[in-house]
Amino acid sequence: MRLEELSTPALTVDLDTLHRNLEAMASLCRRQGVGLRPHTKTHKTPEVARQQLEHGAVGLTVAKVGEAEVMALAGLDKILVAYPIYGAEKLKRLAALARRVEILVSLDAEATAVELSSAAASQSATVGVLVEFDSGFHRCGIRPGPEAVRLAEKIRQLPGLAFRGLMTYFGHVWGTSDDRRREADQTAEEVAKALKAFEEARLPVKIVSGGSTPSAEFAGRVKGLTEIRPGTYVYNDLNTHYQGACSLEDCAARVVTTVVSTAVPGRAIIDAGSKTLSSDPLRAGPSSGYGLVVEAPDAPLIKLNEEHGYLDVTKSSHRFRVGEVLTVIPNHVCTCVNMHDEAFLLRGGEVEGSWRVAARGKIR
Amino acid sequence: MRLEELSTPALTVDLDTLHRNLEAMASLCRRQGVGLRPHTKTHKTPEVARQQLEHGAVGLTVAKVGEAEVMALAGLDKILVAYPIYGAEKLKRLAALARRVEILVSLDAEATAVELSSAAASQSATVGVLVEFDSGFHRCGIRPGPEAVRLAEKIRQLPGLAFRGLMTYFGHVWGTSDDRRREADQTAEEVAKALKAFEEARLPVKIVSGGSTPSAEFAGRVKGLTEIRPGTYVYNDLNTHYQGACSLEDCAARVVTTVVSTAVPGRAIIDAGSKTLSSDPLRAGPSSGYGLVVEAPDAPLIKLNEEHGYLDVTKSSHRFRVGEVLTVIPNHVCTCVNMHDEAFLLRGGEVEGSWRVAARGKIR
Repeated sequence: MRLEELSTPALTVDLDTLHRNLEAMASLCRRQGVGLRPHTKTHKTPEVARQQLEHGAVGLTVAKVGEAEVMALAGLDKILVAYPIYGAEKLKRLAALARRVEILVSLDAEATAVELSSAAASQSATVGVLVEFDSGFHRCGIRPGPEAVRLAEKIRQLPGLAFRGLMTYFGHVWGTSDDRRREADQTAEEVAKALKAFEEARLPVKIVSGGSTPSAEFAGRVKGLTEIRPGTYVYNDLNTHYQGACSLEDCAARVVTTVVSTAVPGRAIIDAGSKTLSSDPLRAGPSSGYGLVVEAPDAPLIKLNEEHGYLDVTKSSHRFRVGEVLTVIPNHVCTCVNMHDEAFLLRGGEVEGSWRVAARGKIR
Repeated sequence: MRLEELSTPALTVDLDTLHRNLEAMASLCRRQGVGLRPHTKTHKTPEVARQQLEHGAVGLTVAKVGEAEVMALAGLDKILVAYPIYGAEKLKRLAALARRVEILVSLDAEATAVELSSAAASQSATVGVLVEFDSGFHRCGIRPGPEAVRLAEKIRQLPGLAFRGLMTYFGHVWGTSDDRRREADQTAEEVAKALKAFEEARLPVKIVSGGSTPSAEFAGRVKGLTEIRPGTYVYNDLNTHYQGACSLEDCAARVVTTVVSTAVPGRAIIDAGSKTLSSDPLRAGPSSGYGLVVEAPDAPLIKLNEEHGYLDVTKSSHRFRVGEVLTVIPNHVCTCVNMHDEAFLLRGGEVEGSWRVAARGKIR
């Protein structure tokens, strides 16, 4: 079947582009001497996670217990739950998982550690713990320094837990290449602060986990980092492109859509809305809008309703007609993929099969 | 089980509030002498659709064929697909459905009608058709007047199709009560224009379908309207509340969430992000943000990442602690519900069971 014959709207993944992205990130990490523990939130698909491991990843990253369960069920191991999991039901499932596969969890509060310890100990499981510190994104994570050491010491005393190291997220490393280099260097100072406190306390830190896709090329500037957790790079998106961190050709995941109405002057309406693309705004670059129409980049996708995308065609040279198939590169591929139960696989414009987005919607 | 014991994040529906909302809209429609064909995109749940029919709805509305299939599979009938469906695979499924239940479809282009006719005729099915016209929202729909009549005449000639009437969407009726009344009156003029053209052409129009939740109280001001298609009213949300069209107590669907981090000064992080609430911005009222925290309305939910919600706690009198359970009323309940596979049912704070959000993700 040709791409144009897909029932729309449909999420597609170009396999050659995916392969190129997998190779490129693996090679970037090798060159910089950091491990790669890719975040699977982008694809939520065990088939892609397996390829990441085959490309030399040291393990996988997830945010939620349900995502870890999907990956473990597919036979994948060494899973970092990069999220401060709290709540008895989830911790019980997490401890059960830790009896079967190697589980690491990040956290930044004693209360979280105590609950996790209790769940792990009651199932005679051991969960590895990374202390999360804030290196500039100001979301989760304690200040780098003595506070982080105190939490690590507490963790070392708790049954069922094994202190393994430190984690931070480089979400603030964002923007042009120059911006990102400068922010990576500032981040390096925070990481150094964190490591110094542990060194002074003579507490061994085995793992120092950081990163993101936009910061990946500067990971080598952050001394002491042992691994990074980029997610977006497998598929890429407009946010990545407009930061100069990938080309449009590197955007492997796209939404195939059909023009369903041209009745209102100045508009073409496509069958991909916020329930297909997500309503995440563009956060990088000169542009705005909700995605790029590959066949008509001069027709901005200016608005989304749930099942309708609005193209402003007033300045476009393209003649839109009802029934026409178009391709949209999403702003933010992680939230877009999460809308879809299925991803259709393309090679040279032919549909070769599909993957179930098995961890879609695993919010717990 | 008490609400506080739910594994979070979780979508909850308060059954007494839902019941009150169902009653109120049914009564509002009866008083104004218009039929009610509720849009099921809000709840995507056959159990709720059935209750809407039991409250006197004349039929159901969906946007996509997959949603219609879910409702038909649950034994529900009289389904309007209020969307210009285009594409062979979807039209084949739609025609198959039309052999089992009563199907109406809206469209605004001859090309769409021709494809639908071909699919219906090839399965010896009959699909009812509503011609969509634009009454001011400028999304889909042809101009009210002779063009709409010409399309209806074409439909009457095509095999497998039965022209049944007109459809329009009142999405532009939005804002304060005064705004909405004025916009409803302007809309009434467009509906009158559409009806006049059909009267002059002596073409019988059986159904005139319009509406939305914010316009529902003014439906009676639109002469000739036979039915409205509100969706949001079953659950309500912040957008509805800030327009003055419901109270906060009428918001039946809420997200139960846990505080997972308070490590960064001035912040509390909850486990509900854009993959739980959707990133739809607030479109009504004086406020911004991504949802209202019922227990701490003075702590705005200022930012979402995929699995993290950021509360700005700098001006809050509430003392947030890790592990605390909070309740969020979403900005836009339709996109929020679509994130969830399951809705947990509450009565008096007790969890009574759950519904599968069976039409979630049915984008085709």
